[in-house]
This record gives sequence, C-alpha cells and structure tokens, in this order.
Amino acid sequence: MPTYTAPTKDMQFVLHDVLNVSASDIPGYADLDRDFTNAILEEAGKLAGGVVAPLNVVGDAEGCSFENGVVGTPTGFKEAFEQVKDGGWTGLDMPEEFGGQNMPAVIGTAVGELFSGANQAFTMYQGLTHGAASAILVHGTEQQKATYLPKMVSCEWTGTMNLTEPHCGTDLGLMRTKAEPQGDGSYKISGQKIFISAGDHDMAENIVHLVLAKIPGGPDGIKGVSLFIVPKVMVNEDGSLGARNGVSVGAIEHKMGIHGNSTCVMNYDEATGYLLGEEHKGMRAMFTMMNEARLGVGMQGLSQAEAAYQNAVEYAKDRLQGRDVTGAKNPDGPADPLIVHPDIRRALMDQKSFVEGGRAFLLWGANLIDQAHRSEDKDADGLVSLMTPVIKGFLTDEGYQSTVQAQQVYGGHGYIEEHGMSQFTRDARITMIYEGANGVQALDLVGRKLAQDSGKHVMAFFEIVKTFCKEHGDDEAMADFVGPLKDASKHLQAAGMYFMQNGMKNPNHALAGSYDFMHLFGHVCLGLMWARMAKAANTALAEGTSDAAFYETKLTTARYYMARRLPATAMHLARIESGSDTVMALDAEQF
Amino acid sequence: MPTYTAPTKDMQFVLHDVLNVSASDIPGYADLDRDFTNAILEEAGKLAGGVVAPLNVVGDAEGCSFENGVVGTPTGFKEAFEQVKDGGWTGLDMPEEFGGQNMPAVIGTAVGELFSGANQAFTMYQGLTHGAASAILVHGTEQQKATYLPKMVSCEWTGTMNLTEPHCGTDLGLMRTKAEPQGDGSYKISGQKIFISAGDHDMAENIVHLVLAKIPGGPDGIKGVSLFIVPKVMVNEDGSLGARNGVSVGAIEHKMGIHGNSTCVMNYDEATGYLLGEEHKGMRAMFTMMNEARLGVGMQGLSQAEAAYQNAVEYAKDRLQGRDVTGAKNPDGPADPLIVHPDIRRALMDQKSFVEGGRAFLLWGANLIDQAHRSEDKDADGLVSLMTPVIKGFLTDEGYQSTVQAQQVYGGHGYIEEHGMSQFTRDARITMIYEGANGVQALDLVGRKLAQDSGKHVMAFFEIVKTFCKEHGDDEAMADFVGPLKDASKHLQAAGMYFMQNGMKNPNHALAGSYDFMHLFGHVCLGLMWARMAKAANTALAEGTSDAAFYETKLTTARYYMARRLPATAMHLARIESGSDTVMALDAEQF
Repeated sequence: MPTYTAPTKDMQFVLHDVLNVSASDIPGYADLDRDFTNAILEEAGKLAGGVVAPLNVVGDAEGCSFENGVVGTPTGFKEAFEQVKDGGWTGLDMPEEFGGQNMPAVIGTAVGELFSGANQAFTMYQGLTHGAASAILVHGTEQQKATYLPKMVSCEWTGTMNLTEPHCGTDLGLMRTKAEPQGDGSYKISGQKIFISAGDHDMAENIVHLVLAKIPGGPDGIKGVSLFIVPKVMVNEDGSLGARNGVSVGAIEHKMGIHGNSTCVMNYDEATGYLLGEEHKGMRAMFTMMNEARLGVGMQGLSQAEAAYQNAVEYAKDRLQGRDVTGAKNPDGPADPLIVHPDIRRALMDQKSFVEGGRAFLLWGANLIDQAHRSEDKDADGLVSLMTPVIKGFLTDEGYQSTVQAQQVYGGHGYIEEHGMSQFTRDARITMIYEGANGVQALDLVGRKLAQDSGKHVMAFFEIVKTFCKEHGDDEAMADFVGPLKDASKHLQAAGMYFMQNGMKNPNHALAGSYDFMHLFGHVCLGLMWARMAKAANTALAEGTSDAAFYETKLTTARYYMARRLPATAMHLARIESGSDTVMALDAEQF
Repeated sequence: MPTYTAPTKDMQFVLHDVLNVSASDIPGYADLDRDFTNAILEEAGKLAGGVVAPLNVVGDAEGCSFENGVVGTPTGFKEAFEQVKDGGWTGLDMPEEFGGQNMPAVIGTAVGELFSGANQAFTMYQGLTHGAASAILVHGTEQQKATYLPKMVSCEWTGTMNLTEPHCGTDLGLMRTKAEPQGDGSYKISGQKIFISAGDHDMAENIVHLVLAKIPGGPDGIKGVSLFIVPKVMVNEDGSLGARNGVSVGAIEHKMGIHGNSTCVMNYDEATGYLLGEEHKGMRAMFTMMNEARLGVGMQGLSQAEAAYQNAVEYAKDRLQGRDVTGAKNPDGPADPLIVHPDIRRALMDQKSFVEGGRAFLLWGANLIDQAHRSEDKDADGLVSLMTPVIKGFLTDEGYQSTVQAQQVYGGHGYIEEHGMSQFTRDARITMIYEGANGVQALDLVGRKLAQDSGKHVMAFFEIVKTFCKEHGDDEAMADFVGPLKDASKHLQAAGMYFMQNGMKNPNHALAGSYDFMHLFGHVCLGLMWARMAKAANTALAEGTSDAAFYETKLTTARYYMARRLPATAMHLARIESGSDTVMALDAEQF
C-alpha cells in the first residue's frame, strides 16, 4: 500500500527561504513565522498521513454506493471527516466571523496540498464546500451568509457546484435548467445537472447546492444565467432543518478514478432555490471564485505527483534489479537497487524537479491571491489572473505525466492495483479535465488574459523575470540558472510577439498555438521558481546553514530543471511559430 | 459505446503506395497485390469491427473470474474466439505445414492491428499463443513441433510466456524457479511465476506454458536459465489429452486495464516440463522471438491510439459546443461542433499524424522482418533489430499519449467509463511496461544495439535517410519534408556522436540520455515515414489519381508532422547533451 509523508520541510523552504512570508506586509502574514507555519504543517501532515492517506486505496477499491436514492461513502470516510472537522481544518482560511481561522490562502493552499496528496477523492468533499462557501461569502446577502456559512465553514453542511448539463459543459450558454420566480423571492429550479462532485453522501446533515439556471425571459445564452442556492434539506428561519427539497440523485457515475468521491447526476424538480448575487449575473459570480478554484485544481495535480513520487523513490531504493554499469553498489546483495540506473534517476529527477518547482509556483500564486485580496492590490490580481490558467493547465498536465512516470518505475507492479500507483494516475487524470479542461485554460490564457488591460500583466511578468536576471546576472554562483531562464523567457516573448503580429490577421494563428503557449509559460514560471530557489539555497549556504545537504540538493535539482526541462521552450515556440495552416487545413471529413 | 472501423484504406496506402510490397522479391510478397491484401484486410476488419470490438467494453466491465481454481473469461469471448479460429486468422502467418497460411509478417502485423484495435485484451489470448508457437517453431524438436504446433496454430490450444517472478522482472538472472531433470528427458518444474497474460481461461482445452527455469548445478545468473514446455494438461503419445499437470493458478491480478485478459499468478509444483532448445540457453531462445514480440507490443500501442482517435474524431464532429472564432460554422444550430476549434484540431492532428506515421513505421518494421527471415538478409535483420526498441518504446509511449489526448477531447465525458475512452488509455498503459519496460528498451537501444556490429546498422539507417534526402532534395514539391527530416536526422547523429565521445569515459553519460535518444530516433523514423508518404502522395497526384482528397490529406498531415512534431528532436538532443551530471549527482537519500 502506498504511503504519504507531508513534505513539510520543502513547504517551509518555499514559504520562508523563497517567499519570505513573515516579512511581507500583507495583512495576516506577520504571524507566519517559521515555528508557527511549521506547527500547522506538522499537525495537518500528521492527520493527512496517518488518518486520511490510508483511506485512499479503500475509497478507490470500494467506491461510493447508491441504493434507494441514498449515496454512501467508503468505509472510514465518515470518521476521518469528523476528525478533519474537529481539528478545525475545514475553516482554516475562512473568516473568524463564521467560525474560521482567517489564515491566508498561502497557508490554506499548503495545507490543502497535504490533504489532497493523502487522498484526493476524500478531500474534494471539503474542497467543494470551500468553493461554494466562498461564493456565498462574496455574493450572499447578510442573511444568506448567516444561514449557511457557519455550517459550511465547519463542514457540518457541505457544498457543491452545479454547472454542467448533459449537452453542455464548457459552453454554458446552452444551459436548460430553469428557475421560475415564485413572487416571494424564491425560485423553483427544474433541470438536470451532471458530473456533480460530492453531489450527495452520508457525511453531512445537509448539502448546499449552488446551481446555475436560467430565469425565463432573461437574455439568451451565457448572459441569461443566474446562480442559486438550493439546499438539499430546507432550512427553517431558526436555522433548524425542515423538509427535503425537490432535489434528488439520478445516478452516480462510474469513473476512471476518484472513486471515493460521489460524482452525481442531480435532478432538480421544482426545487426551492434562492438567488445568489444578481439576476443574470451568475457567470460573474462563478468567475470571481475561478482563480481560487483553478489554483486548487492545479494543487490537486501537483499533490498526486508528490504522492506518487514519494512512493516511486522508496520503490527505487528497495527493489533490487540489475547492476550499476559503473560497478556494483550493493555487491553483497543479489542485485543493486533500481535507483542506481541512470534512466530511473532521469525519471525520478523529472518528477522531483517538477514537484518542487510546481510547489513553489503554486504557493507563489496563492501568495499573489493574498496580496490581491488582503492588500487589495490590483496588479497582483491581474498577474495571478494571467497565471491562473497556467497554474491549472501546466500543473495538472505535468502532474499527470509525473504520476505516469512514477508508475513506470514500478514496472509491472505499477500496473496492478495492489501497489496503488495506478490510482495516482487515474485520480490525477480528472484534474486535466474539470474546472475547465486544459484546452479551455489555454484558450483563456491566449484569448483573454494575454491582452487583458492592454497586456499590462504579461509585461509585469516579464519585468519580474528581467529584474531577477539583472539583479543576479553578475553573480557567478547564479550563472547556471540566469542564462537558461533568460533564453526561455525570450522564447515566451517571441511567442507572444508571434500572436500579436499574426493573431490580428487570423485569430486561429494564435489559438492553434495556445496549448503550447500555456506549456511554454509554465516552463518559464518553473524556471523562474528554480532560479529563485537556487538563489535562496546559495544564500543559506553562504550564511553557513546547518543543513547544507538540503540546500545543495536544491541547487542540483535546479540545475537539472534548467538543463533537462527548460529546453522544451524552444520546441513549443517552434510549434507556435508554425502557425495554424497545417492545423486548420483539413475539412472535418478528412480526419 | 465506442466503435471501431478497420483503417483498411490507410493500410493499403502503406502496403502499396509506400512499401510497394507486391514488387518486392521477398518470397511470398509477389502474391500481395492490391486486391488480395484488400480482401484480407476487409474480411479481418469485418470480424474485428463487428464481432470483436463490441466485446471490448464488456471485457473491461466484467473482467475475468476466478472461482475454485478456475478462470472464466467475459461474456461472449468464447464465442468470438471460435469465430476468429474458424476464419483461420490465428494461423495467418504460420507455416502451412502446421495448418497456417504462410502469409508474411507484414500482413500478420496489419491484421494484428485490426484485431488489437478492436479489443486488445481479447486479442492477447491469440497473441501469446503466437509467441509461444514461434518459440517452438524455431527451437522445438520435430516431435515437439508435431505435438504442439498444429493445435497452437489453430488456437485449439493456447500458449503463454512465463518469465517474471515476484522478485525479478527485468533482471531474470535472479530467477528461482527450478527444473529438476528426471532422467527420462523430462524435468520437474517448481516455482511461482507472476503477471502471466492469458495464464488460464476457459476458451481452449489445453494451454501450453513456456516457462523459464534453472536446472540445478547450472551457471549462475542469466546464463543458467533454460526454457521449458509445460502443458496444463499432459499430452499422450497419440496426441490425446491425459491428466492435469502440476500447474495451477494462484490468483488473478486486478489491473488498471486489459481486464478481459486473465493475468495470472502461476504456481508450478513439480510440474512435468520438457526442455525447449538447449540447456542454459533459455534466454537465447527468448531473444530470437523478441523482435517480433516487441514489434507486436508497439503494434498494440498504436492500435489503441487508432481506436481512440476514431472515436475522438466522431465526438468532435458531433458535439456542439462554442462558436468558431472566425464565424459560426453551424449558424442554424445552438453551437458549432468541437472540431471547428483550433486546439481540438491540434489534438486531433497530433493523433492523426502519429497514428498514420506510426503505422507506416510499424509495417516497415514488419517488412524488414520478412526480408530478414524470408530472404535471409542479415543487413535487414540488423536494421530491424536496431529499430525494434524504438518501435516498441516510441509507439507505446506516443500511443498512450495519443489515447490520453483522445480522451481529453471528450472533456468530462472522457473520464466516466460510459464512453469507453478511459479504457483505451488504461489498456494502452500496459504496452509501455510489458515485453520490457520502455526504459529497458532505451537501454537496449543505446547500450547494445547502437554499437552492434561496429555501429553498422545505425550507419545503414542514416544512409537510408541520406539517400532519400539526396534523391528528393531538388524536388520542390518535397521541400517541406526533406529539410525538416534532414535537420532531425542531424540531431540524431549529433546525439550518437555525443554518446560515442562521452560514453566511453563514463557510460552514464550515454545511459542518462537513452530515453531521449529513443524518442529522438522515433521522431526521425516517423519523419522519414512521412517524407516517404508525401513522396507517394505526390506521385499519385501527379499520375492523376481519382482520389485526390485522400492524397492531399496525406500531404497536409505530413506537413503537420514536420512543423509540429519534429521540433521535439532538438529538445531531446539538448537533454542528451546535458550529460549525466545533474542526473547522477544526488545520493539516494536526497531524493
């Protein structure tokens, strides 16, 4: 069975050596000294590794049940969920006013990685609740907030997001679910929603569904969509629970992975709903949560890569197979461990350099969200908005690949379910799809974000890279990092230039390169992160750290990323600069 | 439910327009005119698409059963297997002497792709039998051949290959299974073998296990391994079946995919076995079949990519979602089909250019095997031996990625099992692992094959590329293809040069780049195939073909491959040329 150990030390390195959080003037950051964050991460890590992780394979093997309209969760989920609630983890980054602890997103994200790495399917029950609560927090009336938030922050009630219908996923303008006004401020919601994660289960006494629907007579398409609160069980004025609402589960889906999470077909049959935010402004309400939600999915992709990597390393150290070509490393044993072989190391270094670089990128993103929200910094908001599709798309694509590489280290043992390596890939696979498939992330990046505010945010990103390279360009100890980062950044600029020059004539020239641009951007971001981490490591070593091996390892891993992963940027640029001619040339019948 | 349509037209194009098989002087090729091969492919395609393909999801959902020591196959498998046997498909490329039809490997491989594309798990029962029969054909005594081959060619009896043990997969020198000589020419085989595909089932009256084991007192390690025939049911002298042999199924494995194939733990308890080939030469006996077996696995990877691609195309044409940014293509409908979107096309073109290029590469490989065996051409044998790890490793890695891309086209519908797209990726995943994990293929390529016969075969490969580029370098209609192929080939040569110059000093410098080299080589091979296909298309168009659209599509797809896939070669070269320093630097504890 796979194990999970919280990567606390690496998180501490990113939070303090790289992001230097406690020195930040973002409200709430001053408390985040090393001891404090370490205590939080250690405590969360204990629960994640000790209680939540062992249920990962259980959830995969058992899945959820659906009998007589009732959804059951796998053995042990309910008890573990109680422990997570009791520890106060569900409200970690929620306002104190509603029972939370008001921690910054950077801490919520780090802790989220721990729980998700331990058990993605399990942690989604809380994750969806967090998303729904955030929407109510931003768009709800005082009464709605008072009614729902305390229960949702504590996860006594969980939440869901209902967007997709059978005939519409990305294109929500095609939506058919209707909301008929009842004259008393409430609406009757009717329609079918599919792929509803945590749609129903036996771990909470109520479920607060957020449902997108159209009010008859409103504008066509996406502009006529509104957002509604539809509780599973009606809530009386005194906050007690009343009768069942007109919402039921039609079926649970049989999926490739995340079996422990109940993915439901939800039927709304004149269910009572309450408008959340303004009429016809449902998409806007959804969009305000999108940066956080997409960052959360990027986090999930990364978390599976971390969990799979940990197990692959242990297997590579334990499994004896073949001999080191440069001389036996375990001469008294029947063979050397797998980890002596160069190609196994290549696979592990690919994973390690991605996981650690991706974590820095993710936490930097969360840091920017805090800056945007807590310091009301519009530039930070613009920058993280630009990078959000990259965080989501790149970290989930690469995270998935990373789990596949980890599985490969096991050979045939990775293919049987016994070792749990197949589950990491099957669970990670969904992160490339939900919360906007990665092709849609690329479209968002190139079609919307690049040009937003006259390209101000992408210029700001380049400025960050440029400033870093300038500051450390003369530092010989940084030569291995600044050069490759500069080159990669030039490729990204050239790609942006290509889009500007050609996308005007024909938007397909830009869109045909959008996916490659997202990956090019991701590599430059991880290149920047590795350069910053190398700088932090050099600083620690110069200051005579007592943990030189840790920082030396960072430098080696940074060198690996520069030498072995960053060369991908030239390939993506070449693909982009080939334009859309060969992509668009065929008629549909010729495929 | 997914469907499967035999890609007969594309196979015909490769066989005739590109490989020009009927003009070849390889014995048996003269019969292969267009009508004849078309009739075979059409007939096989009918059975594959109509009978075998509908059982693919059935096999995945039901899996195999194991009760009271008896393995059962999914509903319908037995009946379909009878139809495949009745059609004579199991002996297509086996000698007439034993009931086969003596077709060349190039036809066996094309037909194999059809059945495997329709249902990989099902077709493996026959595939394993083919492998075991081939071993008996080459290494068996006259009596062994007479006893087993007629039954195996017809698949009345099926076969298995028993190599792996719990503690040894790649490193077979660690093997513990023993073979005690009985003085009467037979041996008592005892030990446990795992991951035995088609290890037991209810579709044949006997199963012929080929088992690697050690005869006590023989040389240590891999040099002391012998190969044995161990029938499930003893065969009497008159060919009738006798008592059960001492072989039983310990368990069936629960796997990520290929659920329809029974992967067994086999227990040999003083089972009677008969030496196949010479004592202690078991590995040599295995190796003689390895080119064919690995080509067969490359074929499987490709076959899943083809099947997944076909369904992704249909979905992209049917599913209405969003609008073409350059103007509505389906203005009377609620939205345009997915296929109008550039990023969907990019994904489909990636798949199309891989599948068609990979098929040409695969059939070229089979063509070379025929040349090697039927024409006893040692140069062809050397060349295909060099390319075999590339065919296996590259076609399965890329084949798997291709199925992931196809799944992605479906969005959330690709993640639920209902549409069958998840199965393609789960089934394809094993092809990267079995018959030598792809890292081992890379090791074989760089550690053994490159330098074989003083590098003669890789020089021969470069000569083929060079000759092609020279012959068509002045042809303006070939300019889009010859230039990129030349560049890619230069990258491959530079990588080989790097290995020569640095691998001597430190073999890790070569081995750390082995995986990238395998992919670099694969891209050059597909580049060569696309250049040859472009040439064939130009020729057909110049000759006034009545099917111009087909050939024009080939040219567009060739251009796509050159512009969008071949740029990967520079990245792989950069990774290779970074050497092994960053790969090998860390101590095991630092991972």
